[in-house]
Amino acid sequence: MTIDSQSGISGNRRLRLGMVGGGQGAFIGGVHRMVARLDDRYELVAGALSSDPERAKASAAELHISADRAYGDYAEMVRAEQAREDRIDVVSIVTPNHMHFAPAKAFLEAGFHVICDKPMTLTSAEARDLVSIVEGSGKVFALTHNYTGYPMVRQARQMIADGALGEIRVVQVEYPQDWLSTKLEDSGQKQAEWRTDPNRSGVGGCIGDIGTHAYNLAGFVTGLQASELCAELTTFVEGRALDDNAQILLRYTNGARGTLWSSQVAPGNENGLRIRVYGETAGLEWSQENPNYLTHSPLGQQPRLITRGGPDVLPVAEAAARIPAGHPEGYLEGFANIYNDVADLITSGGSIGDTLIPDVRDGLAGLDFIETAVASSQQGAVWKKLEA
Amino acid sequence: MTIDSQSGISGNRRLRLGMVGGGQGAFIGGVHRMVARLDDRYELVAGALSSDPERAKASAAELHISADRAYGDYAEMVRAEQAREDRIDVVSIVTPNHMHFAPAKAFLEAGFHVICDKPMTLTSAEARDLVSIVEGSGKVFALTHNYTGYPMVRQARQMIADGALGEIRVVQVEYPQDWLSTKLEDSGQKQAEWRTDPNRSGVGGCIGDIGTHAYNLAGFVTGLQASELCAELTTFVEGRALDDNAQILLRYTNGARGTLWSSQVAPGNENGLRIRVYGETAGLEWSQENPNYLTHSPLGQQPRLITRGGPDVLPVAEAAARIPAGHPEGYLEGFANIYNDVADLITSGGSIGDTLIPDVRDGLAGLDFIETAVASSQQGAVWKKLEA
Amino acid sequence: MTIDSQSGISGNRRLRLGMVGGGQGAFIGGVHRMVARLDDRYELVAGALSSDPERAKASAAELHISADRAYGDYAEMVRAEQAREDRIDVVSIVTPNHMHFAPAKAFLEAGFHVICDKPMTLTSAEARDLVSIVEGSGKVFALTHNYTGYPMVRQARQMIADGALGEIRVVQVEYPQDWLSTKLEDSGQKQAEWRTDPNRSGVGGCIGDIGTHAYNLAGFVTGLQASELCAELTTFVEGRALDDNAQILLRYTNGARGTLWSSQVAPGNENGLRIRVYGETAGLEWSQENPNYLTHSPLGQQPRLITRGGPDVLPVAEAAARIPAGHPEGYLEGFANIYNDVADLITSGGSIGDTLIPDVRDGLAGLDFIETAVASSQQGAVWKKLEA
Amino acid sequence: MTIDSQSGISGNRRLRLGMVGGGQGAFIGGVHRMVARLDDRYELVAGALSSDPERAKASAAELHISADRAYGDYAEMVRAEQAREDRIDVVSIVTPNHMHFAPAKAFLEAGFHVICDKPMTLTSAEARDLVSIVEGSGKVFALTHNYTGYPMVRQARQMIADGALGEIRVVQVEYPQDWLSTKLEDSGQKQAEWRTDPNRSGVGGCIGDIGTHAYNLAGFVTGLQASELCAELTTFVEGRALDDNAQILLRYTNGARGTLWSSQVAPGNENGLRIRVYGETAGLEWSQENPNYLTHSPLGQQPRLITRGGPDVLPVAEAAARIPAGHPEGYLEGFANIYNDVADLITSGGSIGDTLIPDVRDGLAGLDFIETAVASSQQGAVWKKLEA
Repeated sequence: MTIDSQSGISGNRRLRLGMVGGGQGAFIGGVHRMVARLDDRYELVAGALSSDPERAKASAAELHISADRAYGDYAEMVRAEQAREDRIDVVSIVTPNHMHFAPAKAFLEAGFHVICDKPMTLTSAEARDLVSIVEGSGKVFALTHNYTGYPMVRQARQMIADGALGEIRVVQVEYPQDWLSTKLEDSGQKQAEWRTDPNRSGVGGCIGDIGTHAYNLAGFVTGLQASELCAELTTFVEGRALDDNAQILLRYTNGARGTLWSSQVAPGNENGLRIRVYGETAGLEWSQENPNYLTHSPLGQQPRLITRGGPDVLPVAEAAARIPAGHPEGYLEGFANIYNDVADLITSGGSIGDTLIPDVRDGLAGLDFIETAVASSQQGAVWKKLEA
Repeated sequence: MTIDSQSGISGNRRLRLGMVGGGQGAFIGGVHRMVARLDDRYELVAGALSSDPERAKASAAELHISADRAYGDYAEMVRAEQAREDRIDVVSIVTPNHMHFAPAKAFLEAGFHVICDKPMTLTSAEARDLVSIVEGSGKVFALTHNYTGYPMVRQARQMIADGALGEIRVVQVEYPQDWLSTKLEDSGQKQAEWRTDPNRSGVGGCIGDIGTHAYNLAGFVTGLQASELCAELTTFVEGRALDDNAQILLRYTNGARGTLWSSQVAPGNENGLRIRVYGETAGLEWSQENPNYLTHSPLGQQPRLITRGGPDVLPVAEAAARIPAGHPEGYLEGFANIYNDVADLITSGGSIGDTLIPDVRDGLAGLDFIETAVASSQQGAVWKKLEA
Repeated sequence: MTIDSQSGISGNRRLRLGMVGGGQGAFIGGVHRMVARLDDRYELVAGALSSDPERAKASAAELHISADRAYGDYAEMVRAEQAREDRIDVVSIVTPNHMHFAPAKAFLEAGFHVICDKPMTLTSAEARDLVSIVEGSGKVFALTHNYTGYPMVRQARQMIADGALGEIRVVQVEYPQDWLSTKLEDSGQKQAEWRTDPNRSGVGGCIGDIGTHAYNLAGFVTGLQASELCAELTTFVEGRALDDNAQILLRYTNGARGTLWSSQVAPGNENGLRIRVYGETAGLEWSQENPNYLTHSPLGQQPRLITRGGPDVLPVAEAAARIPAGHPEGYLEGFANIYNDVADLITSGGSIGDTLIPDVRDGLAGLDFIETAVASSQQGAVWKKLEA
Repeated sequence: MTIDSQSGISGNRRLRLGMVGGGQGAFIGGVHRMVARLDDRYELVAGALSSDPERAKASAAELHISADRAYGDYAEMVRAEQAREDRIDVVSIVTPNHMHFAPAKAFLEAGFHVICDKPMTLTSAEARDLVSIVEGSGKVFALTHNYTGYPMVRQARQMIADGALGEIRVVQVEYPQDWLSTKLEDSGQKQAEWRTDPNRSGVGGCIGDIGTHAYNLAGFVTGLQASELCAELTTFVEGRALDDNAQILLRYTNGARGTLWSSQVAPGNENGLRIRVYGETAGLEWSQENPNYLTHSPLGQQPRLITRGGPDVLPVAEAAARIPAGHPEGYLEGFANIYNDVADLITSGGSIGDTLIPDVRDGLAGLDFIETAVASSQQGAVWKKLEA
């Protein structure tokens, strides 16, 4: 599917951005706004920021959104923006999972580009619908698997694609956290509440919230397709409705074997996304908590440290960095690269498949991963085929 | 000196920012713009971005600065902005060192707040003048010793101020880099050119460029006043006009002893600013290249890792962070905290001395440090008193 | 089963040690000898060091073993030593796996204590026989799961036993190496040859050689009993007869869940045994390649570094260390702790179950683990019950 | 000076070792004994282990020394051993500093080889005498600057000698500890008592105890000769008689510049000896607390990790290691390499200058360093020439 370069957007005009969700008290909306501002490619001009109309208005005012573009809900926003000359170019959907599908569908069908949080939808059925909608739309649909935006992650992907590891044999990916080690959802903490609520999160708890990031990262970095999994999902905190720990064996179509561990009950782990890939001729290791470094171990040679901005960094990683070597970039800068790539794609046109932007197919693969893992686990941790 | 809260700036209006320097091809100007945008407290509306008028215009256009506010030089900018209703609130000066004093003076005297790169001026004489000017101005003058903006640096400062280390005994601070290990300035690389040129950098090379950051950081974190130094400055690269390595002994007024090492000829070091402080009852360590962590070693107890966003982080560090634990923040976010603090001070009023913003006195101390070190070294590395 | 304190061994007399295997060209025999010497509790006085009589003699001479105690095979050694007044107290069996059972049986039945390399036997049937033999013998049978000898491993075990982690939930143990990433066994390298040969190693390759260490370590540290596993064993190097990579899900009787990864085809990993344990109230991490440190992360508190010899080290770890904090001990010192514990048990008497020495039951559990994993994998990586 | 190969010592006979000092309650004597045993080149047969005759006897009995070779003092030991056919080959002197010179002299003059702890003597005058004595003796005199025995330290030395760093520019060496942060010597702790007592330690406290190790290591690794120093020695703990912190600037004859920091009042540091060397074309870093690794950073290339036993390790380092890559060796193994080298030299003959063994000239250099640093500091931290 090809996106036409957007008429009326010069190489320099900022894209007009709208936002659904992300009002006062939300977390990820603020992140989206910071990363949208960082490189000055967007200006936030409209929003349906909260389902609570008071909070929606107040949030908009804080964000310098004019009152007439502070909408009460996404449907109103679609209608009103469509009617404007200076309508938004693109909308970011940053609501909880159960509120992704409907606005995404509505904005796409009304001709807007969409940036959407992950997991993409509540169910794989919705995800399949969205694939059709996107593919018929001619619009950009970007999924914020933001960890793919880190320069060293892109370096790793390119090295593997270039054959630096030979045929891949083993993939070890993990994503431990500890913040749900106790029943935090009973305390009124909003992030914990919706992430452990099947109505808002879907069938996956930890596996949906962070396991999908790990799964996506493994696929992004290695370029491999997983074909089967065997998943042991556990709920360790009594009374919790969804899993809080997942240990999964993976088989890839090329014969590689993987292990994925994600957990929200592992004390001492803050946001420990980490991937290690081993091929016939080399290994690679990367850790999200110290993201400016990548360890490359060619077989029979001394391991070397690839640094963001240091020697022999590939163009794809260099393009994703802003400041010199030794000046650490972090989570926001990596995330911002997704926004930048979207801005490039919208202004220049082309196919999302030729970019590094996670897209609707990745979203479907994520939902398939969640549902397959849950089914595997419910049947006693048996092997199940992945279909997307 | 007290800054009045700026009439006409509501808590929410973005500050209007101008910039001197930072046109196409410059480095630090782009950093200032990113950090000014990050938290949405500023909008860049005017600039004298380059001494080359063509480049100044082109740069302004790229940055969405309207043509009538793209000035040919700072003097024109001062005059024109003064005449506008919607004049800038604050100007960032991001030129090479020799071009700091004159614009800073001009803008301050015209009633504008100033954010200025370090070292503050070319000489301590200029620095002393600037102290008077600032102190008579009632305006904010902020010096971007940006490393003080890192949350864990502020945590360290507060812990020490709270007595967590007891009386400080030993300060080990270092700032090694390797990018000037060869005579890069002969290759036409612009950053190398002006940083090794006495006309543009002043009497200090490495010591002015990064030694001052290390010296400032040590003072910021410990709250100690250095009284004397013994400096061995060396130029290892043949034909270079300024020092590229500095090893310095420091005496503090409380009896503490310090060592400062800065180098631009230490292969394998990208931007290795690091500080270790030891007191009667505990030690602290922090490294800029992995800035979200601070090691605290109470005597007779197991060392513990303080993480930005983790347990027992002090309010001053929490206030300087944007995202949850385990989501790394980096150089830009730390730098942006200086801009945020300036925005707070301008809008709310108060005294810069009650904030964490590095100010004109820090700038003078930096120049005094550079000149004293150079004098010490020229006389054979003898002890010299520090005066500022 | 209780061991009587050995009559005729004063607290100070060195134990007389014999060795089966470990002649010139062998690896682990030399390790056993170094660790036996380290603390001066043993003297090596007899050996059947090689199946090649020439090499056996030459090896003995090098090792200061008198010619009359340089035996051609273990059977001759048993007979001859039994007949001596100054016969050996204990024999170390350091042959390849298929040569463990017969000499162990012979020495035990002749009344000698035995120290034996792991895996204990070629099959679980042999292992079961050996359990009976040992339990009827009144002799010490020690299995050199040497990684349990590290002070920080013993510290971890004791902390968990003392409840420092609360109920254990998740166990992540791994043991990657890279030395068999190519078909090294074809090059004539002896270590590679026998470790990839089913006749000498048994049904397990990587899983037997190092997977058993990881499995044993997990059990030792956590005190948990594994009840079921699901094992994916893979042979990545074409033409290799045994597995070279194992990814295993584990279920423990208390409801904890584990993942075990062992690999000999992971470039960049030398000997990467590492364990992480997470309980309700804390996590622990330890890595063999930097073994003097243990990270302890109580939930809601800052992670702390427990150092061998540092503050708050438990007596069990202190007793296993020789030199002060900051003076690193390594593999040999950890291994030597097994030898020391055996010397203590032999001289003082008591039950091996009251010591930290890995014993015949651990050996049986190891064989059961190997055979169960192989069976699981052969049937498509299905869940299998562990029986020992 | 050349050592003749010792008649009557076949390549295989263990050397007969005597010991002065090291009785019950001592620390370093036990270390010497462990390392002497590790590789089976020595047997301890005689000793004057304590100035307290009761303790001397009891210690000897524990160590399997026959009663007739348990001497009351070193003079008696010299006489009695000289009279024996089976007299010792070499003696280890492990007493406090003030008791090194007299026994070393006596044993050398009586024709015995000597292994001696550092600092070599109480004064540089004694050290100069000892140089003459050793050089006229034809005997081995080895000084246990044990940190030079680490394989990765020897690798670093050889790499630099081979030109891997080009001309050396900067040397940063440090040795922080924390165990004397309080006035431990008042508690009766014996190690603290004599190390802070000028009568037993000489004029240097921290600088003699550990500063000399750092100084020696810098010279050993770089092959450079220091020509001048400027030393700031401080006593932070009130009432302590000797320095507990030293910060020193160093000038080398080739123009390189160094900083040396040693401290015993730096909380969180156990035994933090660490060296970083920077040359024209590369940097090297090594840390004693994780000694199996060396970081090599060729300018303009990715830093690489040299591992003991890994790829491209030089023969000199390989020869100093016992076990495969990833199996950590520690302090004792490094120390044992000094003993092994001494055994090689005694049995094979040759010149100590052709070995890596620290010798009497290193001992003199150490005393000169201590005395020069103390003099520099006493005169206000002025530059002083080094003479040895």
